[in-house]
Amino acid sequence: MTESHALPPLATDWPEMLPGWVWLAGAGPGDPGLLNLHALNALNQAEIILCDALVNPAILRWACPDARIISVGKRGGTESPKQAEISQQLVDFARSGARVLRLKGGDPFVFGRGGEEAQVLAQNNIAFRIIPGVSAGIGGLAYAGIPVTHNAAGPAVCFVTGHAPKTVNWGALAQGSPTIVIYMGMRNLAEIATALITAGRSATEPVALISDASLPSQNVLETRLETAAKDAQVAGIQSPAIICIGPVVALRHVLNWRDLRDLNPGHS
Amino acid sequence: MTESHALPPLATDWPEMLPGWVWLAGAGPGDPGLLNLHALNALNQAEIILCDALVNPAILRWACPDARIISVGKRGGTESPKQAEISQQLVDFARSGARVLRLKGGDPFVFGRGGEEAQVLAQNNIAFRIIPGVSAGIGGLAYAGIPVTHNAAGPAVCFVTGHAPKTVNWGALAQGSPTIVIYMGMRNLAEIATALITAGRSATEPVALISDASLPSQNVLETRLETAAKDAQVAGIQSPAIICIGPVVALRHVLNWRDLRDLNPGHS
Repeated sequence: MTESHALPPLATDWPEMLPGWVWLAGAGPGDPGLLNLHALNALNQAEIILCDALVNPAILRWACPDARIISVGKRGGTESPKQAEISQQLVDFARSGARVLRLKGGDPFVFGRGGEEAQVLAQNNIAFRIIPGVSAGIGGLAYAGIPVTHNAAGPAVCFVTGHAPKTVNWGALAQGSPTIVIYMGMRNLAEIATALITAGRSATEPVALISDASLPSQNVLETRLETAAKDAQVAGIQSPAIICIGPVVALRHVLNWRDLRDLNPGHS
Repeated sequence: MTESHALPPLATDWPEMLPGWVWLAGAGPGDPGLLNLHALNALNQAEIILCDALVNPAILRWACPDARIISVGKRGGTESPKQAEISQQLVDFARSGARVLRLKGGDPFVFGRGGEEAQVLAQNNIAFRIIPGVSAGIGGLAYAGIPVTHNAAGPAVCFVTGHAPKTVNWGALAQGSPTIVIYMGMRNLAEIATALITAGRSATEPVALISDASLPSQNVLETRLETAAKDAQVAGIQSPAIICIGPVVALRHVLNWRDLRDLNPGHS
């Protein structure tokens, strides 16, 4: 191992990644600054890094120069390595005695299959550690100036995966959750919007679609429930994107701090 | 300002906190290692830090030695500074030209009143930045070995504040969201459990109550919906605690990585 990046002092030592262990870490939505210290500590030590396509390559610059980086990337809409194959790779590398980091976009337990991968590790008696991250449905919205909760918007927020919309009780969510944040829902946005409107949500309810969340290339489209799918197509919003539905979207006009920053280019 | 803690190199410089700016940052659920690099960068620069009671003091060790740290802590059940007073303090310190960090437990936009504080800043033309954090309802659960989402548990998770349970449509959430994570709900746990059971959730559905999430003192009580409130009282679980209801709780028996670690004390 070569030089690593400094971490601030802890009361105890930073955890050591031992040979044969697997750490599952979330890299956050994209901005490298949202990486946490445990994840940086993991990058300092990992010999093998299995990495999702959604992880910003700028974060991998902080890996050990001699670390082996393996892309097991999934992207919505393209063929991806089967989940079972990824889990088996983790097991095999751990059994070979390597220090293994599994780096995922966002948080490993928020629609990231981290639970499934950890189960396979546990079933194979491989020691693991979970390093949570900032999920795009929270942090990505924040970078778009949208607070995922707000007193004025009600007491609940729901996170839902939209890749199989027929498995979701949209009617109940429409009634119970003033704010609905959808992951992997772009391809089914028309169907989802119709289901929500049918269940009583206003056709003109504000919707934000956010791609490249938290990156300089971040793209935010503000639209309405009834026109969201068509507007997304016209605007060319690419998957993956986070969909946020609810009155919190309207707060963006006040809270869009990144544009405020751009108005003051000397400011960061 | 004196020496600061090193950050790994970025393609550009790390953002500079300018005089008169306020950064609202999440400190995560407790483990200092869950602090992200933007928040560490904020601690490197802040002259004034307004800090919630839920922020681990170990994190404040990384503040500038000459920073002024002001506790504006709120804890459920005790009288706390009024939200308007806290927002006004942020405005006043910013107007005085100070570099101001508002440090909150978890994520500033997840039931943290960060949206309200940012609104006041925007209305007063004060530049601000949002630094998301790991929310206890995701990262705290992960430290208890509970994945907040899992394919086998269904497509949705709901985060809800339980401090005013009459404002929540528990019936709809019971039907729509297989996993329900409740913040600030300990005092109303009996009422919430009854509402969920009345709406059709099983009285024997697994529940986890987690206090001191992610800290060495973390306390996890596994219980059932019908007995949760009584069991919490007997076990002496203190507010604040995260409540997780749903089948994901059962995965803890396999995924409780911190206890696995304790079985291998040489491992971190």
